[in-house]
Amino acid sequence: MLLPVIMSGGAGSRLWPVSRETLTKPFIELPDGRTLLQKTLQRTACLDGVSEVLTVTNKEYYFLTRDVYEATDTNVSHSYLLETIGRNTAPAIAVAALHAAAKHGEDVVLLVMPADHLIGNQKVFSKAVTVATDMAVNGWIVTFGVEPSTPETGYGYIEGGESIGDSGARRVVRFVEKPDLETAEKYIALGRFTWNAGIFCFTAKTIIAALAEYVPEVLEIAKKTLASSDSKTEPVVLGEEHFASSPDISIDYAVMERASKVAVVAADFDWSDIGSWSAMAELVQSDERGNRVNGEALLVDANNCYIQSDSRLVAGIGIDNLLVVDTPDALLVAHHSRAQDVKTVVKQLKLESHSAANYHRKVHRPWGTYTVLEEGANFKIKCIKVKPGASLSLQMHHHRSEHWVVVSGIAKVVNGERELLINANESTYIPAGHKHRLENPGLLDLVIIEVQSGEYLGEDDIVRFQDIYGRT
Amino acid sequence: MLLPVIMSGGAGSRLWPVSRETLTKPFIELPDGRTLLQKTLQRTACLDGVSEVLTVTNKEYYFLTRDVYEATDTNVSHSYLLETIGRNTAPAIAVAALHAAAKHGEDVVLLVMPADHLIGNQKVFSKAVTVATDMAVNGWIVTFGVEPSTPETGYGYIEGGESIGDSGARRVVRFVEKPDLETAEKYIALGRFTWNAGIFCFTAKTIIAALAEYVPEVLEIAKKTLASSDSKTEPVVLGEEHFASSPDISIDYAVMERASKVAVVAADFDWSDIGSWSAMAELVQSDERGNRVNGEALLVDANNCYIQSDSRLVAGIGIDNLLVVDTPDALLVAHHSRAQDVKTVVKQLKLESHSAANYHRKVHRPWGTYTVLEEGANFKIKCIKVKPGASLSLQMHHHRSEHWVVVSGIAKVVNGERELLINANESTYIPAGHKHRLENPGLLDLVIIEVQSGEYLGEDDIVRFQDIYGRT
Repeated sequence: MLLPVIMSGGAGSRLWPVSRETLTKPFIELPDGRTLLQKTLQRTACLDGVSEVLTVTNKEYYFLTRDVYEATDTNVSHSYLLETIGRNTAPAIAVAALHAAAKHGEDVVLLVMPADHLIGNQKVFSKAVTVATDMAVNGWIVTFGVEPSTPETGYGYIEGGESIGDSGARRVVRFVEKPDLETAEKYIALGRFTWNAGIFCFTAKTIIAALAEYVPEVLEIAKKTLASSDSKTEPVVLGEEHFASSPDISIDYAVMERASKVAVVAADFDWSDIGSWSAMAELVQSDERGNRVNGEALLVDANNCYIQSDSRLVAGIGIDNLLVVDTPDALLVAHHSRAQDVKTVVKQLKLESHSAANYHRKVHRPWGTYTVLEEGANFKIKCIKVKPGASLSLQMHHHRSEHWVVVSGIAKVVNGERELLINANESTYIPAGHKHRLENPGLLDLVIIEVQSGEYLGEDDIVRFQDIYGRT
Repeated sequence: MLLPVIMSGGAGSRLWPVSRETLTKPFIELPDGRTLLQKTLQRTACLDGVSEVLTVTNKEYYFLTRDVYEATDTNVSHSYLLETIGRNTAPAIAVAALHAAAKHGEDVVLLVMPADHLIGNQKVFSKAVTVATDMAVNGWIVTFGVEPSTPETGYGYIEGGESIGDSGARRVVRFVEKPDLETAEKYIALGRFTWNAGIFCFTAKTIIAALAEYVPEVLEIAKKTLASSDSKTEPVVLGEEHFASSPDISIDYAVMERASKVAVVAADFDWSDIGSWSAMAELVQSDERGNRVNGEALLVDANNCYIQSDSRLVAGIGIDNLLVVDTPDALLVAHHSRAQDVKTVVKQLKLESHSAANYHRKVHRPWGTYTVLEEGANFKIKCIKVKPGASLSLQMHHHRSEHWVVVSGIAKVVNGERELLINANESTYIPAGHKHRLENPGLLDLVIIEVQSGEYLGEDDIVRFQDIYGRT
């Protein structure tokens, strides 16, 4: 049995302002309208021998992840390990391997993949996975090496040694963390170095044994974490009690660089970690002057620019080599060569506790989304979208009253003692202090405009009485 | 008597996306929050001998102009000549001179000024006007010449000749339209050339006589236009009937370049026509790297950039010599050296009938403003602000119903047969087909959120029954 393990962690601060702490890289839309997470799921779900996909992510991203998976057409079941605190890849893989071994037996083959990489050629990928799976069954820890096209200094490199069998796999001589340019150029010239794609394949048994040998503390804490978590009901939420004390260590450093039976399989598929806006730009067809536009732009004497804009018109005049990325509340204008430095902006914004570092105007909730349209003294206007069958919590606000106008769909509303159905073009008023609940009993999205009034309009003025998403 | 005549015309397409057909250059806010029109009014209203200011503008801009004037603290009265069709400066000045002569006698001194120029030093300006006024009384047509600081190719030049008296004024030898760079450099080297500031001073009698001599057709049509318009009630709306047939000719070409008794007074005040974003940038203090920010920006390794943004955070990385101007629906990113080419973008947008060429999200009306917050299938949400004492027309929509939620102030509403007062945090519903009216009976702004629902939500679905602004 092959069990893909999707590791959905990375914030992707180099893809700010689209990627933010509340909507990380796996969830942002590529120019084709699909997310990296969705693509990762599709890519793994259609591999031979896969009937379940295990996702390791933060508890905060559970509902968003589930929404993405539900919107993706696959025939696999989903299981989740939800971290309440992040502790790097080694502890996460340790928990995943123990959990998988308990559920499917220790011979289950794990294919560990980051959620936020892009892989182009599915057939070639499947073939490489088949090679890796065969080797994993024979006790190998398998990595995937991408043929370098440039002396990239942002990736790790794998030096391949003797061939193993006739599959093109090689024994790993060593791993090298992000080298300097000179070293990277030497590696390319030497020819036996490949980029570490961050994808791993091994049986639960093999990786558990390796963890026991090289980082026994990580394995012990993983065992305790699972023992103290309820692993019978889905999703499995990992308690912090033990997990928080786990060493913060990557699987590369904990195991890969130390284990002896490590192989590298040639990853001949197109691969990108979409590590910056420059990489994102590559996904868009360029015009004859090298400009790539995802959105609406009017360019005059522009060359080699990437323009991304959701809803605003962008006019560019006499500009070269620029990245222009526009969102409702923040705009990035950067020189192409400085794409990596976007993360310094995010760091600075976080220092200033600027909302644009972490939050979007549009906020995802288990039941749907809301977008703040306008705020003023004593009022706030939101557009609220509730998924079919979804329900907000039964709640109450001390300081604000709310007007709800249904603009499409049908709403089932609890308003104090009353329960009523509200159709498009009808409204209701919830006075402060009234218990209320909003539900979408229909088959289409429910869209309402909420006008809040009150002296205090913070999101924390909420008392939840009942919630189907466990948020009381 | 000195009568300032403010000519409020120019679209200012080089200041797009802030300046648009519905909110032209005189009305856009400078970095100090005030408009060029407001500054022009203040500058002229405090001159000696001024008790009235006459404004010549398009009828479309009347209410907006009046709002600006009402918000400006001056002791002068306002009169207006409203064009329904634009016909350049000579016909406009002809009408203004005839109108002023009829009202104040032909010896009234006119100080004709564009509404969209910036003048720095009021004292020096006042002094220059005093010199000009004295000469105007003696029959001179007076122009104002700005000492050139650079060989500007975007301005007209005036060659000064023999001195007149001891005021520093000179007889004009000739006018030169925008020269090429080589010529402009020569002019600066020669020293007797100044920039034409576009400000003129003459008596009504002098200019009427000059118009009669050089462009009799313009004067005749101006007379007919006034005769066929109701010039007794304010504002005076100029009928199209005759005015439309007037030659489209500038006062420079019609009179200045031909008349013999033309003088140029030294305009030693700081002067700028704010002709582009580069000029606008100059109004903002620069940091040590030459960056000027009007709004919120986070700059990393940026040099000589101008950033203007109303509400969005702008992050700039590794950018040089850029103009970044952000508005709710359109963004401009241009190289500083291409500031003049913004007009080509506007031209292109107009060709495409793009709304961003002409309209803003926020729309000015005689009673206040509305801003479209969100639009979707069958719904539109507006934030409507009604000035104290103002009233929308009594109206009806065939295809849409409207929910009104008052978020601040108090509303007097006619809804079908009912008339009611609605306080903050209360709402009402106007079904399609109901006659309704919204009025602000209070002393503070009234702000309401309007949620429109219906199959058709175009602004043209309106039947007006009564309107205090004459729009029925």
